[in-house]
Amino acid sequence: MTDTQPPFERLAIIGLGLIGSSISHAVRAHGVAGTVVGFDAAPEIRTRARDLGLGDIVDDIGDAVRGADFVILAIPVGAVGAAASAIAPYLEAGAIVSDTGSVKESILRDVAPQLPKGVHLVPSHPVAGTEFSGPDAGFAALFEKRWCILTPAADTDPAAVERVAAFWRALGSKTEVMDAAHHDRVLAITSHLPHLIAYNIVRTADDLETVTESEVFKYSAGGFRDFTRIAASDPVMWRDIFLNNKEAVLEMLGRFTEDLSALQRAIRWGDAETLEALFRRTRDIRRGIIAAGQDEPEHLKKS
Amino acid sequence: MTDTQPPFERLAIIGLGLIGSSISHAVRAHGVAGTVVGFDAAPEIRTRARDLGLGDIVDDIGDAVRGADFVILAIPVGAVGAAASAIAPYLEAGAIVSDTGSVKESILRDVAPQLPKGVHLVPSHPVAGTEFSGPDAGFAALFEKRWCILTPAADTDPAAVERVAAFWRALGSKTEVMDAAHHDRVLAITSHLPHLIAYNIVRTADDLETVTESEVFKYSAGGFRDFTRIAASDPVMWRDIFLNNKEAVLEMLGRFTEDLSALQRAIRWGDAETLEALFRRTRDIRRGIIAAGQDEPEHLKKS
Repeated sequence: MTDTQPPFERLAIIGLGLIGSSISHAVRAHGVAGTVVGFDAAPEIRTRARDLGLGDIVDDIGDAVRGADFVILAIPVGAVGAAASAIAPYLEAGAIVSDTGSVKESILRDVAPQLPKGVHLVPSHPVAGTEFSGPDAGFAALFEKRWCILTPAADTDPAAVERVAAFWRALGSKTEVMDAAHHDRVLAITSHLPHLIAYNIVRTADDLETVTESEVFKYSAGGFRDFTRIAASDPVMWRDIFLNNKEAVLEMLGRFTEDLSALQRAIRWGDAETLEALFRRTRDIRRGIIAAGQDEPEHLKKS
Repeated sequence: MTDTQPPFERLAIIGLGLIGSSISHAVRAHGVAGTVVGFDAAPEIRTRARDLGLGDIVDDIGDAVRGADFVILAIPVGAVGAAASAIAPYLEAGAIVSDTGSVKESILRDVAPQLPKGVHLVPSHPVAGTEFSGPDAGFAALFEKRWCILTPAADTDPAAVERVAAFWRALGSKTEVMDAAHHDRVLAITSHLPHLIAYNIVRTADDLETVTESEVFKYSAGGFRDFTRIAASDPVMWRDIFLNNKEAVLEMLGRFTEDLSALQRAIRWGDAETLEALFRRTRDIRRGIIAAGQDEPEHLKKS
């Protein structure tokens, strides 16, 4: 393990989808844990995970976490409460529990009350993903150069927080500690609202009577395809995100709709100046993202 | 030239931005024209185009089109009327005029009345682009495997239409002939509305008081960055698109907003079933786009 932190002896990964399987690949690539134990509630995913060699795959969630010094819940945020309840009896004092969910206040609310005394909860959110789901989608490099946000409660043992941060850094991520409520607002605008809008426009296009589905597919290179990529993300994961970050998402959506009405009015009245000024401003923001290293210019990505 | 069409003797490209410069590269790579003459209204772009070797770059638009058997207007759709007026006196009978704009009814409206008798107007729209603008952004492969839509008026000489179609096919594109009004509706949903929404959300994010610009940049990998890529497109080109395809864009925007209100309501009332059903449906649409060959799965694009 990098930094000065010792590796974990036994890591239990609960949930072997894109994120869980990528953690398994990355942990073994970087030697961050002695043993990797994996569990998934779906038998067919456990079978597939065994075929893929994702670690010691067990059929019982208790067997997965028994003796583990680090447990990661890599499951939809709506499922962490039940999972915490299921693992609680098997957790040993000193163990650290983390997760990978995209909403963090609900993790503190649903998980913290269920853990035994002496077990540390350090919620984390690796801001990384692809359009694919399931154990076959994972790869070791998923977290490289991406941010991972930790949102421990104020009274969490700083040593536990630092061990989890060092874990993600060992997988190639940059880490930041943030208040859970603030995290949920930041992600509402940088991730949840973009997904909501992408899901919505893909539906709008599909519902048109005058434009065929085949035409939408064929001419999607004009912009639409980038939305479809986002709108292909895991349905259950995203359902849970919206249900668990309702307030922040609705607030951002309200602002978005208000701004869109102003833009609609500018188009209706032919207000060229307003349109051009906005489009110049947003181009500058794009340059900031590339400067921040969180994307590459499109032409460098061409195959 | 592929197919059975002879190459053009003298191609004049008016406008040397991303599209015009890419045409110049592609035409020379594929030997589709004897001579390539280029003009741009901006002197600094002409200078740069000379440095880049984009063809015979001339300082007068009349000199560019004099003697040309094929003229392509690769300029914002709001500028084609004035350009058509400027080139009209120099066009010879039998010459073909085309363009590359993303709105097509306005091209027929603004250009057709200005052309001399015997000159053929075959509007075209290569559905291809990147987030970059200007003569340095061009590359020969831009049009490969992309669709190019031709929208000639009903009474246009079929031989002229076929020559333009063969031209785009020689550059690697697939071509389709479509009614201009239908084109404008199809592109309103597959390209114009996606851009409008991307521009809008980038602005909404930038206006937030509680989330810093630096946070938006850092955590953009969660979805936002794909919108910023779209929102970095050329401001003048996009201003003109919205002003010239107003009716279709406003119609699609009205549907989008209506659908978004329904989604907002589902989130507010915790309607898990509605959310999950929609997200499953949009994932299937994404699969259709990949099957249609208009995008690659994200993980294949990783550098």
